[in-house]
Amino acid sequence: MEYLSMLPGPTNVPNRVMRAMLAPIINHRSDDFVELYTDVVDKTQQVFETKNDIVALSASGTGAVEAGVVNLVKKGDKVIIPVNGEFSNRLSQLIEGQGANVVKLETPPGQNATFDQVKEAFDNNKDVKAFYVVHNETSTGTMVNYLDRISDLTSRNDAFYVVDSVSLLGGAPLPVDKWGVDVCMTGAQKAIAAPPGISPISVSPRAKKYMQENPPNTMYFNLARYFKYYDEEKHTPFTPALPLLYAYREALAILLEEGLQNVFTRHKVCSDALYSGLSAMGLSPFAKEEDRSISIVALNYLDGLEDKIFRNTLANKFKVLVAGGFGNLKGKVFRVGCMGEVSPYHVMRTISAISSTLAMMGYEVDAQAGLKTAEEKLKSL
Amino acid sequence: MEYLSMLPGPTNVPNRVMRAMLAPIINHRSDDFVELYTDVVDKTQQVFETKNDIVALSASGTGAVEAGVVNLVKKGDKVIIPVNGEFSNRLSQLIEGQGANVVKLETPPGQNATFDQVKEAFDNNKDVKAFYVVHNETSTGTMVNYLDRISDLTSRNDAFYVVDSVSLLGGAPLPVDKWGVDVCMTGAQKAIAAPPGISPISVSPRAKKYMQENPPNTMYFNLARYFKYYDEEKHTPFTPALPLLYAYREALAILLEEGLQNVFTRHKVCSDALYSGLSAMGLSPFAKEEDRSISIVALNYLDGLEDKIFRNTLANKFKVLVAGGFGNLKGKVFRVGCMGEVSPYHVMRTISAISSTLAMMGYEVDAQAGLKTAEEKLKSL
Repeated sequence: MEYLSMLPGPTNVPNRVMRAMLAPIINHRSDDFVELYTDVVDKTQQVFETKNDIVALSASGTGAVEAGVVNLVKKGDKVIIPVNGEFSNRLSQLIEGQGANVVKLETPPGQNATFDQVKEAFDNNKDVKAFYVVHNETSTGTMVNYLDRISDLTSRNDAFYVVDSVSLLGGAPLPVDKWGVDVCMTGAQKAIAAPPGISPISVSPRAKKYMQENPPNTMYFNLARYFKYYDEEKHTPFTPALPLLYAYREALAILLEEGLQNVFTRHKVCSDALYSGLSAMGLSPFAKEEDRSISIVALNYLDGLEDKIFRNTLANKFKVLVAGGFGNLKGKVFRVGCMGEVSPYHVMRTISAISSTLAMMGYEVDAQAGLKTAEEKLKSL
Repeated sequence: MEYLSMLPGPTNVPNRVMRAMLAPIINHRSDDFVELYTDVVDKTQQVFETKNDIVALSASGTGAVEAGVVNLVKKGDKVIIPVNGEFSNRLSQLIEGQGANVVKLETPPGQNATFDQVKEAFDNNKDVKAFYVVHNETSTGTMVNYLDRISDLTSRNDAFYVVDSVSLLGGAPLPVDKWGVDVCMTGAQKAIAAPPGISPISVSPRAKKYMQENPPNTMYFNLARYFKYYDEEKHTPFTPALPLLYAYREALAILLEEGLQNVFTRHKVCSDALYSGLSAMGLSPFAKEEDRSISIVALNYLDGLEDKIFRNTLANKFKVLVAGGFGNLKGKVFRVGCMGEVSPYHVMRTISAISSTLAMMGYEVDAQAGLKTAEEKLKSL
């Protein structure tokens, strides 16, 4: 079972992070817990580049995304959201579930709505309450590149700006305060390289005020309840997943030791190497070039290449895990996670394993071209 | 930080369980995961003594309790629930939050509604949709002793029977199928002695059918979604907290190796020893004798005994963690968890540490009587 996990999450987790889970079980109503949790909040703020309130939910990323919706969207609210894959679709379902009036900017999978399309939606919907966006569409390997310009639109229309960055935050720039993001969610098991189960969310003062004045009909995801417990005692309202909090803190520490900019560069160079190396070998990326994600490299299957056989061979013979496609893309694409611990070792082992698997399955691929191209890209690290 | 945790959860976790968390991160859409999760479901069924569907949520106990409410209770439904403490109060808030018509059987903290009062409520409310009950009220150390007789009432009125056994299941008998419980929730960090973060829930076929036909307005706690993923692929819909699932499985294995009946006896004998030992030393239990919990021993503070000083001395000088009171009981009681790994060692160390702490704080206590009485009780183990 000692695989190299090149999944779009959960990713490989450094041993130092795994071992942090062995810290003794403590009372979550004690000074020991206050020390742990305030440190978690502080380090999360550094990674989110924000002074906003932080809640680290004991839940998967979907839990944080649900919290980011039910605390802010009410019946009849108008919400703009780009939709082009499984996760943006889920997000829009959650928003619709609140009884909101949803303005969907739909584009084909692998292709993002342009900034101009988003601007046009704002122009046509001056009464918009919030803009929701999936930063990185995990199902298709696309990434939105204009998040720095959205607050010009939301602040003009006095709308909330919410970013679901579950599969990217920590791997690419998302300076929450500088970009004016009101609510931002992620999952610990993606670019932060912690085990799954902790999902942090940041909330701006104006969004916090709104949430406190308009509590949602949930206990577990009621963020106002978390703010109250934190403001009063630095506790969480419910028993948190303690070992995972220790691991998450350690993963944040590693990320901050390396330095955010270095981490971003490493992710960028590694995904460049994967895209260009695998392309040189004869595979083609699924997403439109300008919309390609740096944390999830989605590739079209070669003609006749069978998903299950390919991924099982890669896993069983070469111990490299990659993911298949979702929904309509099942059997049409496979996805290589490029996040967390990712380094030249991960990239080259993956390219080499994919090349051998394809060759074993009878496909003629140019392994030499793939490896050379990737090596060239990785030189800058 | 190497405390003896005698908290009402999280409890001490055996090293074997902690180390299980170090299993390599796997793909949650793989055969490795299917093996892990089907084993988790199977072992949970054994501990719940049921053939019902099992969902192991990645959330705290409150998450499972919320799931047990929002999947079953709809606007206008009539629900009967006994209320006498923080957790039964929370449960009734969750039910009211659904817009239900709640028939509360309120009794003073430390005292349960009698079976006759419950029966009377059923007689007076033939149109009841569900009966909800907190098996073990963590905030006051009381336990309901007539859960085996409830299905006579619920089946007569064709109502659902739901038990929140977060702080007891695994420590005392709750044979779900034999007692006709439709929905039963617990938390891994209580009597099962796993780390916090996994909360299992069992659902009977008729409750499952209802949930599938009446999905709730939540994604994370939508149990029908979990059934679908499990029935089709033995997966979970969202990335589960993998290391905690490994730990939970190991904790269940330990419990089953000891044997359910032995575990129940051990819990009973240990709590008897705590109650009688601490009573002989001069402390008095908070709960009415016939309603006392076997997993949480709540004790009245002696006159003038200051909560924070007492618990801090006990923690800092003697490394034993106990909990304070909740809400109105803050400063009036302290609570000793008696669950999970609990054994003669835990009981005697706790009694001895409490006795020394009280003596250091200037209270005259009969340490000898306390220790002797407890030792006598523990002989049967």
